[in-house]
Amino acid sequence: MDLYFSPLACSMATRIALYEAGADAQYHQVDLKRKVLADGSDFLALNPLGQVPVLRTDSGELLTENPAVLQYAADRHPQGGMAPADEMRRRRLGQWLGFVGSELHKLVYTPLLDSGSNDGARHYARGKATARFALLDRHLDGHEFLLPDFSVGDAYLVTVLNWSGAVGLELAEWPALQAYRRRVLQRPGVARAVAEETALYAQAQEQARGAAQ
Amino acid sequence: MDLYFSPLACSMATRIALYEAGADAQYHQVDLKRKVLADGSDFLALNPLGQVPVLRTDSGELLTENPAVLQYAADRHPQGGMAPADEMRRRRLGQWLGFVGSELHKLVYTPLLDSGSNDGARHYARGKATARFALLDRHLDGHEFLLPDFSVGDAYLVTVLNWSGAVGLELAEWPALQAYRRRVLQRPGVARAVAEETALYAQAQEQARGAAQ
Repeated sequence: MDLYFSPLACSMATRIALYEAGADAQYHQVDLKRKVLADGSDFLALNPLGQVPVLRTDSGELLTENPAVLQYAADRHPQGGMAPADEMRRRRLGQWLGFVGSELHKLVYTPLLDSGSNDGARHYARGKATARFALLDRHLDGHEFLLPDFSVGDAYLVTVLNWSGAVGLELAEWPALQAYRRRVLQRPGVARAVAEETALYAQAQEQARGAAQ
Repeated sequence: MDLYFSPLACSMATRIALYEAGADAQYHQVDLKRKVLADGSDFLALNPLGQVPVLRTDSGELLTENPAVLQYAADRHPQGGMAPADEMRRRRLGQWLGFVGSELHKLVYTPLLDSGSNDGARHYARGKATARFALLDRHLDGHEFLLPDFSVGDAYLVTVLNWSGAVGLELAEWPALQAYRRRVLQRPGVARAVAEETALYAQAQEQARGAAQ
């Protein structure tokens, strides 16, 4: 399995899932600004939208969209327990992956993170955060994870929440959500993925500054 | 199976899937402005986000998020062939449902449709449409549907594309996408769902005008 990723982008969720499952994979860093891989080859040939994650399956198929990529990674490594076996719980996982991907990632965080955004779009996105954080806070008050056990849904959620500081979204108002985030960040696979990608992110920023001088 | 819907909202995708599969269901209309059902009961008790679709399974579980709802509806009525049986094709369906839900619905159409939006958010959303329509147009040039056969992915896509006129998104630039939309709208289950929900939408608008006078 090959994962095309950019440090701290939403592709980190798949790295988290693979680390938590103790699974091997090949990781290929993408320069999202220039849309190239480390060897200079064209990333748009892998995903015309120019977004990570792209996952290449062992049979060579390319898969995009985090909910699909994460469910694939979880199912390929069932020993990790990253996706439930029970049918209704799998549907509930699909619901949470859809919620994190559409309601949080694309509606709230994308316009806040995107350098091509504008004040109106950021204001609109910020206004959408409250109801969504409130829903999560209510659910996580009394639940350790989104589902009874840690899953790729949590891997995706903690990856998205990790952008909160950078875009000035304050979690202090949501104690259960904040406690959940701290709890999940302490898991060894999550901590390792975040530490490694934070270092890679800093390195990429330095290289970009060097190239600009 | 009970479907909580609002006319022409993204819940129409599930009605399309059920009609195409020849499946029975109970349909409950939601007043999204007032967040109540027809009997005056509180819709927020069913979904705290106040959004459709909500699907109540035959065992009484409530499911939200279109990708999860649509896959459930398809799997409960396998005679309709609304979701492929092959594992990799199911993953590809998950990818398309994720794309339509996050990249098109939430990133492009939600800020354009939302009366609580603003000019900046609409400008940002409109700017995101081009790359996404281009990707669809390339894929549908030579493909009849998103997958080899009609699926809930198409049901969702045609539901979202149906909002294009209302928000001034022009499909003329994308001939394969436009031809696809026309082709899908001619399917009996799709045509029936769109006709019925268009009538219900007009009726709801009239009632709202009456109530305001």
